[in-house]
Amino acid sequence: MELKTARGVQDISPEQKIVKETIIKKIKTIFERYGYSPFETPIIERFDVLSSKYAGGAEILKETFQLKDQGGRELCLRYDLTVPFARFVGMNKNIKMPFKRYQIGEVFRDGPIKLGRMREFWQCDADIVGSKSMKADAELLLIAKDVFNDLNIDVIIKLNNRKVLNSILNYANVDSEDQETVIVTIDKLGKVGEEEVKKELEEKKIEKNSVDVIMDLLEKNKNIESNEEKINFLRDNLSDEGLEGLKEVEEVLSYCEGNIYFDFSLARGLSYYTNTVFEAFISDGSFASSLAGGGRYNKMIGNFLESEDPEAYPAVGISFGLEPITVVMKNENNRKTVTQVYVIPIGLDKEAFKVAQELRRQGLNVDIDLLGRGVSKNLQFVDSYNIPFTVFVGKEELEKGKFKVKNMRTGEEVFMPLDKIKSQINNNNN
Amino acid sequence: MELKTARGVQDISPEQKIVKETIIKKIKTIFERYGYSPFETPIIERFDVLSSKYAGGAEILKETFQLKDQGGRELCLRYDLTVPFARFVGMNKNIKMPFKRYQIGEVFRDGPIKLGRMREFWQCDADIVGSKSMKADAELLLIAKDVFNDLNIDVIIKLNNRKVLNSILNYANVDSEDQETVIVTIDKLGKVGEEEVKKELEEKKIEKNSVDVIMDLLEKNKNIESNEEKINFLRDNLSDEGLEGLKEVEEVLSYCEGNIYFDFSLARGLSYYTNTVFEAFISDGSFASSLAGGGRYNKMIGNFLESEDPEAYPAVGISFGLEPITVVMKNENNRKTVTQVYVIPIGLDKEAFKVAQELRRQGLNVDIDLLGRGVSKNLQFVDSYNIPFTVFVGKEELEKGKFKVKNMRTGEEVFMPLDKIKSQINNNNN
Repeated sequence: MELKTARGVQDISPEQKIVKETIIKKIKTIFERYGYSPFETPIIERFDVLSSKYAGGAEILKETFQLKDQGGRELCLRYDLTVPFARFVGMNKNIKMPFKRYQIGEVFRDGPIKLGRMREFWQCDADIVGSKSMKADAELLLIAKDVFNDLNIDVIIKLNNRKVLNSILNYANVDSEDQETVIVTIDKLGKVGEEEVKKELEEKKIEKNSVDVIMDLLEKNKNIESNEEKINFLRDNLSDEGLEGLKEVEEVLSYCEGNIYFDFSLARGLSYYTNTVFEAFISDGSFASSLAGGGRYNKMIGNFLESEDPEAYPAVGISFGLEPITVVMKNENNRKTVTQVYVIPIGLDKEAFKVAQELRRQGLNVDIDLLGRGVSKNLQFVDSYNIPFTVFVGKEELEKGKFKVKNMRTGEEVFMPLDKIKSQINNNNN
Repeated sequence: MELKTARGVQDISPEQKIVKETIIKKIKTIFERYGYSPFETPIIERFDVLSSKYAGGAEILKETFQLKDQGGRELCLRYDLTVPFARFVGMNKNIKMPFKRYQIGEVFRDGPIKLGRMREFWQCDADIVGSKSMKADAELLLIAKDVFNDLNIDVIIKLNNRKVLNSILNYANVDSEDQETVIVTIDKLGKVGEEEVKKELEEKKIEKNSVDVIMDLLEKNKNIESNEEKINFLRDNLSDEGLEGLKEVEEVLSYCEGNIYFDFSLARGLSYYTNTVFEAFISDGSFASSLAGGGRYNKMIGNFLESEDPEAYPAVGISFGLEPITVVMKNENNRKTVTQVYVIPIGLDKEAFKVAQELRRQGLNVDIDLLGRGVSKNLQFVDSYNIPFTVFVGKEELEKGKFKVKNMRTGEEVFMPLDKIKSQINNNNN
């Protein structure tokens, strides 16, 4: 037996997890600001649900981890938080609409591994079901702006609409059965560049004329600067479906100002999107993958329910990727522990244990020597974890009722009664 | 395709998840008070690690979900958070000891389902590695007391020591190869009663004399009331190993007063425990399963590492079961949403959208009509989610710069400028 983690998964040390928890807390706070409530679906799902033709599509199904229970039932690990949410709504049709929830947790994809992309990774999703209003889409873009603002990450947000993309593919005469695979290829543009996209479209045996039209449009998309000009350019070329999509793009943009760029090459791989799609990237281009993305999927839940009106349960969502966000965050001065105070007993074990308990009761995060080490060994330990304060418990301290408190950053030492220590520490510890 | 969850897993609605998050937050706060830092291991582990003979033992391995990745590697889903923690420490031998971490997340067992026991469930664990001191064990019992105190759940905590139990089995002349299976049976005492335990021991072909001695001791354990008397009774009968265990029990008890009962029938199923074991049960007996449990496993990490001294990495941990805790919590007046304020536009969509944004910027949790409904439909929606406050945005409000704020509990309506709304709401909302 080798002591190893499985391929593509990772341990998160306290130092990293403290950062991760900070990010999660900020995202949760903002989701709740916008009226999204916490929610949970299980990690294990039925394979038939997640492999439904209305779910994530063939590309993602290839990367789905499958397993069986002892009863031989076919199960799998969720590959995203959206399809299980759609399943939940489908099973709870009487829920009051619009229904807004957020969910944070692990998802699993048995695919290639690279920086910021693991086989087990965390998504932070907010979704709203029951509204076709573009205000809902705009709300999610505002959430993205608030979150990255709070995290001090400069991003640009790219916005597109699947109706526009479909209309472009029709304009380029791409056969309808080829459109999904063409979208998957176009989706790679930001990462692999134009040459590779062209090559892949040719390999997929898309007609030369279609490829030329697509490449020409991608070129234009890059060169036209303002959202308005792009919209005007397309308006002259697209069919009715495309014009509807353009109108939706304009409406979303009218509700959220700044840093949002209409990009009609943006595809966003998953097959369930029907209207708005968007992705957020770091502005300086230092990381190629998106940090967040999402879109509108008006038909998945209706289709799940075999509803007469497939758009009876319109929905739109956003997903933040915790691992890519962690990768781009500059983590200086990380905390190695949550401990604020370390108690060092000088001979008096039981009494020191009680002092630690009293400080905990006051609301401080307290650790104490559990090895019976000497003072200097204990101070080395405190240093190795960067614990900010030490309290010494010796005979003199107990007799006087005043304890030596050492600020480990400044070296300053003061004597004070137990009930003063908390305010002393809070004052000195930002 | 049927829209269903997999067997033994569940969706957690916002109403339930808000309660669950409250419980988690309290547990985290107390873990951190005692100097435990957050930490994470993956859900997917290598099967050879979790099936190692030094890990959870045969009983739990039967219930382990297995799967393979596309490369054919043998994987499984973690069945607890302890073995993966031991693996982490084994892979990071140079970590500064004692190392204290907590972890909260899903674990998976493909076993029978009943109330409060699912196939996918949450554990909240704190563990410390690197100290043999019984103060560490006592610290975890104090954590248990603090957590249940904070959650307003009356519990009794049962404490035992595996050395005592082993010594009892030797005293009863149970063959050493039968001892693990006998422990598994005795562990069921609280749930199935004495008759069933006796029957199961007989079915397992344990010698009649041994069974009689065991049943007699279990009877005594029930009838002797004080911890001190129990310890004295055993002291007269046990071997050296048992006496060591008794001394450890006494030492743990000396650090934590009240509500902790020495119970020498307590086994706690897992095979990796070596000394202290403990479990917390609801005092009124209304729920048979334990709400938390743990113990000392001094050899697992050393054995993993094939260390010369198997006790080179002594460890002790506690695990809280979120589902059983949720079951016993009395959840009256649950919140159905995190939303504090609902904005109702009267005609003025864009302006109302801006008002909602402004209130969010102030730090309130705000939702807004996204369906263009009339006032009475909107108020019905607000009622259905028990949202405490409504803000109306109409022409008059915008002109005067004062907005109608309705307290949905009292019916009271006041007009006020936007920047006064937050303090009004916080004052009225506890």
